[in-house]
Amino acid sequence: MKKIKISVIIGSESDIPVIKKGINILNRFGIDYDFKILSAHRTPGELIKYLDSLKKSGVELIIAAAGKAAHLPGVIASNSLLPVIGLPVDSGLGGLDSLLSIVQMPKGIPVATVGINNMENAALLAVSILSVKYPVLKKKISDYRNEMKIEIFKKNYKLKDKL
Amino acid sequence: MKKIKISVIIGSESDIPVIKKGINILNRFGIDYDFKILSAHRTPGELIKYLDSLKKSGVELIIAAAGKAAHLPGVIASNSLLPVIGLPVDSGLGGLDSLLSIVQMPKGIPVATVGINNMENAALLAVSILSVKYPVLKKKISDYRNEMKIEIFKKNYKLKDKL
Amino acid sequence: MKKIKISVIIGSESDIPVIKKGINILNRFGIDYDFKILSAHRTPGELIKYLDSLKKSGVELIIAAAGKAAHLPGVIASNSLLPVIGLPVDSGLGGLDSLLSIVQMPKGIPVATVGINNMENAALLAVSILSVKYPVLKKKISDYRNEMKIEIFKKNYKLKDKL
Amino acid sequence: MKKIKISVIIGSESDIPVIKKGINILNRFGIDYDFKILSAHRTPGELIKYLDSLKKSGVELIIAAAGKAAHLPGVIASNSLLPVIGLPVDSGLGGLDSLLSIVQMPKGIPVATVGINNMENAALLAVSILSVKYPVLKKKISDYRNEMKIEIFKKNYKLKDKL
Amino acid sequence: MKKIKISVIIGSESDIPVIKKGINILNRFGIDYDFKILSAHRTPGELIKYLDSLKKSGVELIIAAAGKAAHLPGVIASNSLLPVIGLPVDSGLGGLDSLLSIVQMPKGIPVATVGINNMENAALLAVSILSVKYPVLKKKISDYRNEMKIEIFKKNYKLKDKL
Amino acid sequence: MKKIKISVIIGSESDIPVIKKGINILNRFGIDYDFKILSAHRTPGELIKYLDSLKKSGVELIIAAAGKAAHLPGVIASNSLLPVIGLPVDSGLGGLDSLLSIVQMPKGIPVATVGINNMENAALLAVSILSVKYPVLKKKISDYRNEMKIEIFKKNYKLKDKL
Amino acid sequence: MKKIKISVIIGSESDIPVIKKGINILNRFGIDYDFKILSAHRTPGELIKYLDSLKKSGVELIIAAAGKAAHLPGVIASNSLLPVIGLPVDSGLGGLDSLLSIVQMPKGIPVATVGINNMENAALLAVSILSVKYPVLKKKISDYRNEMKIEIFKKNYKLKDKL
Amino acid sequence: MKKIKISVIIGSESDIPVIKKGINILNRFGIDYDFKILSAHRTPGELIKYLDSLKKSGVELIIAAAGKAAHLPGVIASNSLLPVIGLPVDSGLGGLDSLLSIVQMPKGIPVATVGINNMENAALLAVSILSVKYPVLKKKISDYRNEMKIEIFKKNYKLKDKL
Repeated sequence: MKKIKISVIIGSESDIPVIKKGINILNRFGIDYDFKILSAHRTPGELIKYLDSLKKSGVELIIAAAGKAAHLPGVIASNSLLPVIGLPVDSGLGGLDSLLSIVQMPKGIPVATVGINNMENAALLAVSILSVKYPVLKKKISDYRNEMKIEIFKKNYKLKDKL
Repeated sequence: MKKIKISVIIGSESDIPVIKKGINILNRFGIDYDFKILSAHRTPGELIKYLDSLKKSGVELIIAAAGKAAHLPGVIASNSLLPVIGLPVDSGLGGLDSLLSIVQMPKGIPVATVGINNMENAALLAVSILSVKYPVLKKKISDYRNEMKIEIFKKNYKLKDKL
Repeated sequence: MKKIKISVIIGSESDIPVIKKGINILNRFGIDYDFKILSAHRTPGELIKYLDSLKKSGVELIIAAAGKAAHLPGVIASNSLLPVIGLPVDSGLGGLDSLLSIVQMPKGIPVATVGINNMENAALLAVSILSVKYPVLKKKISDYRNEMKIEIFKKNYKLKDKL
Repeated sequence: MKKIKISVIIGSESDIPVIKKGINILNRFGIDYDFKILSAHRTPGELIKYLDSLKKSGVELIIAAAGKAAHLPGVIASNSLLPVIGLPVDSGLGGLDSLLSIVQMPKGIPVATVGINNMENAALLAVSILSVKYPVLKKKISDYRNEMKIEIFKKNYKLKDKL
Repeated sequence: MKKIKISVIIGSESDIPVIKKGINILNRFGIDYDFKILSAHRTPGELIKYLDSLKKSGVELIIAAAGKAAHLPGVIASNSLLPVIGLPVDSGLGGLDSLLSIVQMPKGIPVATVGINNMENAALLAVSILSVKYPVLKKKISDYRNEMKIEIFKKNYKLKDKL
Repeated sequence: MKKIKISVIIGSESDIPVIKKGINILNRFGIDYDFKILSAHRTPGELIKYLDSLKKSGVELIIAAAGKAAHLPGVIASNSLLPVIGLPVDSGLGGLDSLLSIVQMPKGIPVATVGINNMENAALLAVSILSVKYPVLKKKISDYRNEMKIEIFKKNYKLKDKL
Repeated sequence: MKKIKISVIIGSESDIPVIKKGINILNRFGIDYDFKILSAHRTPGELIKYLDSLKKSGVELIIAAAGKAAHLPGVIASNSLLPVIGLPVDSGLGGLDSLLSIVQMPKGIPVATVGINNMENAALLAVSILSVKYPVLKKKISDYRNEMKIEIFKKNYKLKDKL
Repeated sequence: MKKIKISVIIGSESDIPVIKKGINILNRFGIDYDFKILSAHRTPGELIKYLDSLKKSGVELIIAAAGKAAHLPGVIASNSLLPVIGLPVDSGLGGLDSLLSIVQMPKGIPVATVGINNMENAALLAVSILSVKYPVLKKKISDYRNEMKIEIFKKNYKLKDKL
């Protein structure tokens, strides 16, 4: 089967630790990803060129992570027809600035925002969105959720002893 | 062509005015929608029954709007394999409570969150997500964006006179 | 005397340290407790099954702790007729997201919310609520408060030397 | 049957409209209530005298509503062995000051806090707490919830026409 | 004397009332201005074309106003070598989202941010920045400040009668 | 000369480190102080007894420090005719909860609030208030401010080397 | 008896309605006041001249009210040896900006801050501070508090009828 | 060529680490700077004397950094005709207090505010403002931006290996 492919873009090298937390989820679901550092502010032209290059790349969705005045996801959404998942990174103020800068997009250009530093959910949301087209992913999500359940069940064993 | 179908669920009758603002976008893109009031708290059993009924309904995505401690989108995402768009409704505190209650989902169950009261973007995000599967929508998004551009160009005419 | 019994439910293993801080209060007041990890999002079906099982268990009250978009207490309150105490756990943003997600419940389904990470008060509120039915607890609360007073009196001894 | 009795205390005459919204819930559940304006700051002595008077009054629970630096519920909880429900009233800052002043009680003296201006939930929480002792109330809560469900079902009739 | 020229860009027609409040200040200081509606998100290409056109236009500074996730000033600053003044417009949340989206720019691309809805200060900051090159403006600023002083002195006349 | 006397009251032993930071200021200005741990919630009766005892003690002002839902300064102000300085202690949420719980007192009972954890300013405000009656303190404040100036002047020496 | 005298300074004419709410309290307590509009930013030199003039005026305390980045109380406190009461005025953001700009003064120069828009408490705090020197005011405060109590008692008459 | 000169003023020695982060940017662009610690509150007279001394010093712009109730930039802007860049320093509350105290200046006296602790952007904004007069700086900014781009390009090399 042809690999399903997405693009993961971060605004700064300092966002790598946040991305790391969820990249195994992409692997597990068999999602191939391109990974780039591109800044809406420091490399605006290159960002647009990269987004243009995606048109023939087979990439079907973009995850964009950024901190502070996190314009990256919104700028990407404005310059691409792919669905964009915005991941706010906490780089001060608890991440409230990044969250508001991503989620409060004006009417016309939406960004699918997930929780602060929550790359796991960005990855799972990517899978969920792609599952509309690729039903095989639905089955995998179902399996993943079952494993989460089993993991929680196991944790209940001798739970009182942990207090 | 078979109609593309989504479900729009609100937690309370008071959310109707917010939904109204974006429903014409769904119509314009030819997205058919089921529309329900179902509360995560006041009709928990019925909500789950409804979500089960969606499995054979052809519905491919859910938009869920709620205010205050807005659990509806998260509870739906936990009980369905469809992608869920969460729309925070301002019912006090500027909507900050609804936004945080929707976007800060724990690892494992993501909700694609849009801005406070921004049903237009919830609808457009739905279209964007569905366009992964239905390329015809990509062309329509492109047209929609062009119209937005033209509308802005027109507003620049004799703009200084408006000051 | 038959043991008074409550249930303590946490949404994630990471909430255990917060629970630890107040569990000795339950012991001191002779409150027996069931302790479970169950997630509103990752184990929704199991949560409801567990709540159903409580009907014949003699459990009279539930303490539910959760972080981030803390839906657990609200979802429990929607699916049980027992009083539910909600304990917001700080897992970022100082716990403001958990607090608002718990306390701002919509009309119809209340959650008795205590302060962020304050398991001691969750436990004492449980005792206070149960004391309506079990007057013996009123005497114990009174004793507990007296001990707190005496502890504070003792701390006043040679207090200036601590500056 | 002897009437079940609670006390509703507000810190200021300006809190009356908020109380009004939930008082019919107390009536519906057959809860008799005493109603007083007493300020933790302007009538501290009288407040304590009133709380002392409750000891032989049959009152089993207190709802206390206050705005701004809302000390009333906490001061009541410190001077009474009855469970205290704290109701934050928005008198500026969206009620965030009242909410934090009520819910963030120090260890030792809990207040069962409900949402901002949400007297309906304060009343329902009172019923829920009292239902531990008076099982008849459990049945009534169950009926109330059923009515809420039916009300929501009705609202779904011709719902799309409302858009 | 050649006219000093700036550009005023707003992200949406709804920002016009805010701009109106300070446009007379530009007039008073003899600053000519170009006025455009251009959105970072809805007209990204046109925005960049316009910014390119400014290179030979004699425009020496840009004021950019926007609400919500206010990316406009930052995107302009990334695509122009002119100094950019960012004016946050309140369109919900008291303007806190716009303020943070403008002022918290990442290292490398600064935006000179003024207060929420404070177009008067955006205009005066433009004059202040331009006065570094055009000393004649310094004298005018000094005059303006003197008039503000005199205005305040006048308001002190019979001030107690206004109480 | 008779010693000028104030009272410093903290709500919890954990507030001692904050008090320590400013106690030398009281010493320097020759202000004698009584130091007590007394909780508005855990020792309400004892607090009032202590406040009564101050009437004949020569104490002329009270500094009260507390964290979280910081009711202590307000409760003291309600039960004493002495001026009360409220010192918010950060015990989570950056101290915003304590600040709002102290400063937002309802009409009728004011508390003179200083910055979060800023015992130095609480002490200096005490001196400033007492200087209305004791002019000798005005001279001492003037000297203190001069020393602060000289200290800052000294820090300017070879300042660039510190970069 | 010589009149006790204070100064009330506002930063802008728009603060007059807030001052109005508490000026009758000053009158009632027999406090004479000078009333001025003087801006820390627009009339910095005049402000300092006015503060110098107070040295021989018999004024013993200053109330300073300001909104937004409310520097007025702090600048006054830096340029005067009189105690300064800071009154934050809400002119957007619920007054949170004014409150923080006044209360969070750096170590060395305190401002006695009261609640947002709460001129009544600013006036009462002035009286409380002056009562340290003028014991006659203590009696008057006591009377004022008694009247507040009686007013609250009266409001309890037929209170339930108001629901 | 005559050196371009600015002044960097901090309110407290504790702000030095923040200044350090951007001082190399001033050096790189050939901007000479005077560096002073001067407090709006502790050295108000000296601050004004210093600002007067700048009139004949050739200094063309001021960067002012301060924390908490950060009045320094606003007080400088009120007492000088030079453009003032305000740099909020986080000294608690995530720097939100400093940011609001600087950016929310009243109408009439603007401060060009940059992000919390972001001295790099304060320095770059200074360069940008000065480039209006000194076109040579425009070329240098362009070079600087190119270097930032190249730095980002390099970081993309073997980027996936860093996950």
